[in-house]
Amino acid sequence: MKKEKLTIVKIGGKIIDDHNKQNRTLENFSRLAGKKILVHGGGNIASEILLRLGIKPKMHEGRRITDAETLQVTQMVYGGLINTTIVAKLQALGCNAIGMTGADANTILVRKRPVNGIDYGFVGDVDQVNVEALNSIMEYALPVFCALTHDKKGQIYNTNADTIASELAKAFAEIYTVDLVFCFEMKGVLLDREDEATLIHEINESSYAGYKMNHIITEGMIPKMDTAFNALRHGVNKVFITHYAALHQESKNWGTQISLK
Amino acid sequence: MKKEKLTIVKIGGKIIDDHNKQNRTLENFSRLAGKKILVHGGGNIASEILLRLGIKPKMHEGRRITDAETLQVTQMVYGGLINTTIVAKLQALGCNAIGMTGADANTILVRKRPVNGIDYGFVGDVDQVNVEALNSIMEYALPVFCALTHDKKGQIYNTNADTIASELAKAFAEIYTVDLVFCFEMKGVLLDREDEATLIHEINESSYAGYKMNHIITEGMIPKMDTAFNALRHGVNKVFITHYAALHQESKNWGTQISLK
Repeated sequence: MKKEKLTIVKIGGKIIDDHNKQNRTLENFSRLAGKKILVHGGGNIASEILLRLGIKPKMHEGRRITDAETLQVTQMVYGGLINTTIVAKLQALGCNAIGMTGADANTILVRKRPVNGIDYGFVGDVDQVNVEALNSIMEYALPVFCALTHDKKGQIYNTNADTIASELAKAFAEIYTVDLVFCFEMKGVLLDREDEATLIHEINESSYAGYKMNHIITEGMIPKMDTAFNALRHGVNKVFITHYAALHQESKNWGTQISLK
Repeated sequence: MKKEKLTIVKIGGKIIDDHNKQNRTLENFSRLAGKKILVHGGGNIASEILLRLGIKPKMHEGRRITDAETLQVTQMVYGGLINTTIVAKLQALGCNAIGMTGADANTILVRKRPVNGIDYGFVGDVDQVNVEALNSIMEYALPVFCALTHDKKGQIYNTNADTIASELAKAFAEIYTVDLVFCFEMKGVLLDREDEATLIHEINESSYAGYKMNHIITEGMIPKMDTAFNALRHGVNKVFITHYAALHQESKNWGTQISLK
């Protein structure tokens, strides 16, 4: 039996920070056919609010350490400010959105990231996605996830939005044909970041190794690519990295497609 | 046919601000039998955060004016910080909670409060409760509402939590036997606010008029009482004002009962 299609779209970065870009992205997302889930990151707003509240960002090798007060700001910005705003905008666009954290209906269970030299604080690694609960919600509404999860022991955790999107995709791969789309403000993965004409249309594991070796794929793109390959190895149908302006088009127009082979 | 019972509990004030009180309240709420909805206010945290962000609270005759930046803080504190924390705690207590604003699944539609001399900003008066959507959610989860709503045109509004609880109760009165419980840190309505032995067990419209005239019921309690009577006039079964420590007990032990006659 052919499985129903599910598209999971992750948005982040400048799409969150810039209202015009955010509106355009949501309009395009609302036009995507079929079942879908939106996952959003936090952009730079959390850092701004931390600064305004006089809380010094704590970092280790470029990654944020989420202590108790940082977590509170994360909850406020991701779960309150950004998530409710996106839900209200999608409702206006005719999408019956419902804002979610992993605590809602116990949809995403995590455990604290093990302390391995460095303690990242309230950062959770995904243990389980409650597919049944989320599927019930999808019967009548469109889940919009922010980067918050829980441990079922009363504690909220911060979990990377790319990871949430990928874990949802993996968990749903058994019952849906899942496409996972990382949507941002560039056309896709570029050979030359300054030149959109150098878009790489397809990357597989072997070309990825080469791009990494030649420092074409670097820094923040590496964990995203690793997450993409991980999703594909767990049954996700297709993974794309694309521009928000392409989102409403057919998937053949979506920037870079990641494939295993 | 006997209608199923639904208990709608509103918590606010010191129960939100004080972690021990909040935990005790949620434990008691989790032990309440039957279908239930939790509605929470914002306590004093929103004012604290406004202050820390250097945003001057704007008030008119004791009521907050919700301009754009105040609304953002309201979204952060109500929808992010308090709501997600309560949901995670209820999940740990075995309640399958799901955090909600009125924008989620289009459950509570409002319109901006008309400007009548004074513009309260993004304060919404309830137009419609989407009983069908909310009833679908209640099939598998326990809604936890914060004091945020929307206009289906993309705008979030702040709506008083007592009002949300009462409007939900009124909307569900046709299909459920609804008890509405305003839960706080006092035993109920007291003749002498300093003496819990002076608890008034029952208030009806006629005794209410007397209490108001004699300044026994004053200030903040007046809109709450008016909201309670309004709910009863619209088919709500029973309304109580009670202490959070009594919540898990039978309703005959719930502080003050409000009745029409």
